[in-house]
Amino acid sequence: MAGETTNKRPAALVIGAGDATGGTIARRFAREGMVACVVRRQAEKLEPLIKQIEAEGGTAVGFGSDARKEEDVIDVVSRIEQEIGPIEVMVFNIGANVPCSILEETARKYFKIWEMACFSGFLYGREVAKRMVARQRGTIIFTGATAAIRGSANFAAFAGAKHALRALAQSMARELGPKNIHVAHVVVDGAIDTDFIRENFPERYATKSDDGILNPEHIADNYWHLYTQSRDAWTHELDLRPWRETW
Amino acid sequence: MAGETTNKRPAALVIGAGDATGGTIARRFAREGMVACVVRRQAEKLEPLIKQIEAEGGTAVGFGSDARKEEDVIDVVSRIEQEIGPIEVMVFNIGANVPCSILEETARKYFKIWEMACFSGFLYGREVAKRMVARQRGTIIFTGATAAIRGSANFAAFAGAKHALRALAQSMARELGPKNIHVAHVVVDGAIDTDFIRENFPERYATKSDDGILNPEHIADNYWHLYTQSRDAWTHELDLRPWRETW
Amino acid sequence: MAGETTNKRPAALVIGAGDATGGTIARRFAREGMVACVVRRQAEKLEPLIKQIEAEGGTAVGFGSDARKEEDVIDVVSRIEQEIGPIEVMVFNIGANVPCSILEETARKYFKIWEMACFSGFLYGREVAKRMVARQRGTIIFTGATAAIRGSANFAAFAGAKHALRALAQSMARELGPKNIHVAHVVVDGAIDTDFIRENFPERYATKSDDGILNPEHIADNYWHLYTQSRDAWTHELDLRPWRETW
Amino acid sequence: MAGETTNKRPAALVIGAGDATGGTIARRFAREGMVACVVRRQAEKLEPLIKQIEAEGGTAVGFGSDARKEEDVIDVVSRIEQEIGPIEVMVFNIGANVPCSILEETARKYFKIWEMACFSGFLYGREVAKRMVARQRGTIIFTGATAAIRGSANFAAFAGAKHALRALAQSMARELGPKNIHVAHVVVDGAIDTDFIRENFPERYATKSDDGILNPEHIADNYWHLYTQSRDAWTHELDLRPWRETW
Repeated sequence: MAGETTNKRPAALVIGAGDATGGTIARRFAREGMVACVVRRQAEKLEPLIKQIEAEGGTAVGFGSDARKEEDVIDVVSRIEQEIGPIEVMVFNIGANVPCSILEETARKYFKIWEMACFSGFLYGREVAKRMVARQRGTIIFTGATAAIRGSANFAAFAGAKHALRALAQSMARELGPKNIHVAHVVVDGAIDTDFIRENFPERYATKSDDGILNPEHIADNYWHLYTQSRDAWTHELDLRPWRETW
Repeated sequence: MAGETTNKRPAALVIGAGDATGGTIARRFAREGMVACVVRRQAEKLEPLIKQIEAEGGTAVGFGSDARKEEDVIDVVSRIEQEIGPIEVMVFNIGANVPCSILEETARKYFKIWEMACFSGFLYGREVAKRMVARQRGTIIFTGATAAIRGSANFAAFAGAKHALRALAQSMARELGPKNIHVAHVVVDGAIDTDFIRENFPERYATKSDDGILNPEHIADNYWHLYTQSRDAWTHELDLRPWRETW
Repeated sequence: MAGETTNKRPAALVIGAGDATGGTIARRFAREGMVACVVRRQAEKLEPLIKQIEAEGGTAVGFGSDARKEEDVIDVVSRIEQEIGPIEVMVFNIGANVPCSILEETARKYFKIWEMACFSGFLYGREVAKRMVARQRGTIIFTGATAAIRGSANFAAFAGAKHALRALAQSMARELGPKNIHVAHVVVDGAIDTDFIRENFPERYATKSDDGILNPEHIADNYWHLYTQSRDAWTHELDLRPWRETW
Repeated sequence: MAGETTNKRPAALVIGAGDATGGTIARRFAREGMVACVVRRQAEKLEPLIKQIEAEGGTAVGFGSDARKEEDVIDVVSRIEQEIGPIEVMVFNIGANVPCSILEETARKYFKIWEMACFSGFLYGREVAKRMVARQRGTIIFTGATAAIRGSANFAAFAGAKHALRALAQSMARELGPKNIHVAHVVVDGAIDTDFIRENFPERYATKSDDGILNPEHIADNYWHLYTQSRDAWTHELDLRPWRETW
């Protein structure tokens, strides 16, 4: 565990805090007073995010941990609950979008994409839900994608993982809603302002000046909105998409 | 036109302001500084809502107008634009949920339910969109229901109207998004705290103390959230449902 | 009523028999031994179809009738049941695909498209269902389109009508299935080999030699398949699409 | 490889031939003249099915093979193609429906359900597709379930696997359709006449006399129908459900 924890403030657990989306969501929950507990494989890469959150007056704790390993997941969740505070909100944000023709897809890659983008979500979702159900409160948000509702050509692996993650979110919402746990799924349909898009899709990135790609701050606004919904009017699923997107 | 207008503040047009949902949404937009332009068939029945908005420090103008009549719709939209201010947001909120076996459904009722819950939405949507497209700004929100995505037994008429309204919202969103008009559809899945539910479904209403029915204030929160979304991250569709609802 | 009827063989009622699709479905059911009862606005235009069915050894009766008029619908259904035979299968096949920007769509056209493509289906569906329920047997098939599940830009009217028709089919299936009436909805996703496509989309039509457009005979095969399904394994919805179609 | 093969007749490969559904589908394709190549974990358990197919005048070859193991899958597909004949149709029929609360689901079971019901489908789908694409002909059918389109409470694992399998089917259909390979997905929504239902759901099974559960012969009729569709009118997805089912 990198960083420090000094109180029992509620924790916001963000798994997949390595990109701009997860990082910005973590910063948002930290600004609102929660301890941002951020997870990615290599703890040292979380340092800039933790520093940024602290510079913004927040508290953050980083966990270098493999979300695909059950023992690691149990360890992270247990330590947060014991040493930091109750997990008030969990955001699962690991993606793994690597397109490939079905004719050339390897078993290893098909498996890894599912393991990262779905199995990890199951492990964290279950572990966190156990604690939340005991307290009868909490919010769990899964980041989805268009691939969660459409299996496009060359996207069998990613669409499979995202479809399965959506099924997990739906199943959890139906079981845990009546236990006062809010489970939501966000369908992000468009390119996000990340290093990945800037480097790999420069033409797409150029539409940023015209709001043609999603600003992580505005994605975070919607996660915060979901968190703050009254329980008589919970949203299970919403989509987010730039104004010019064709869909 | 009942009530008064004294400036060119932006207008929030709410069609179907006769129930708690539409009324509360109108009040919310008025509290945020817009002129609430509220429409229902009988103008005098809008008086309590207008008084309430004014008591809350807002401005409201009532229109007794039949949303199924093209000339009435054109008249209302024209008068608001000329005499009150630019329509910044439009909410279409007319429902018409009258279940019936398909074997006994009358042509008159099947038609009327579509006319009220869908055709009116088309008329207002088109008229308002024309103005918004000319200004390249504005938000249009359609209130949907579970029947918009599922045709249950005995709900052919209501489901037909709500499916068609959802198709309208989708088609408008796809055409008008790139013109900077935000079109959204809200799937309300559950009973709302209205006189209708209190009188007709008392057992359901009794769950209110436990947040078992939707509070119109919290529905309005979500309409306001949709209105305030940045255009790089617009939601087209979200659902709203009490925590205990089975779905 | 044009044509003749001489016995009480079961009737196959095809509404919208004016294009190749409806006509070919009628011919198919006639070949299987039913009396093809074919409906379109102008009776005389049905003559070639009736002659073709008779040349193929079948029996056909034509009805010049407006499917949007309740009294006409009641009259057609009553006459078939009294004078020809019990309606064993009904196929509703009226389309009305006229795209238009929402900004320029007229109220008249929006209404007419719904009236033709949806309201007529309700009128015929209800009238036929009454007879079938009394006999506890029968099949009702609605021809749908991609627009039934997606509201594309410029297709608000057609998508609205087709969404509403799909809601009707679903609602009827859920109510009437347990009464032993099979209600199905077919999503035709692609151009069909019709005069309309040949004249208006010649490039599309040119793919016919390569099976790039739907052959009405093969559509009819699927309607026949639906009709012959055992009741322990009924299909409510299937899609049909040429192999090369992108979707 | 159990059984014998004496010619190069086309092969129908059925993975998951251990239950009545897979077995009956295999028998159907054998009756139509193909060599039924049937796969389940334990070869000896295939003997009764092979004997039945042979008694019906058909040819069958059994493979005891683990569909989750890439090398086994490659071996089975290679041997069929080399020793028996070209795979003309493949049916993937492995299920793994074990409900569980998300709070008690084990990582091992969540993984195994996905591995059996989805990963195996990917392995066989890819291997068979490679051969079919080289020949530019073939049909691949995946057996789905209601859980493929809905994540119910306590079904996170099964729904996840079935959603992912549906994504696979869609993605393959979109990529391989234009290569003349027909990929379809069948949503079986209801109990099937199997030993499993008879033993575990006797009340449900008792509705068999009234066609309340699916007869595997009638499921097989629909798979055969999909196989025989002309390529200008392919179905990607259809549902199958007993007439009395509520859905």
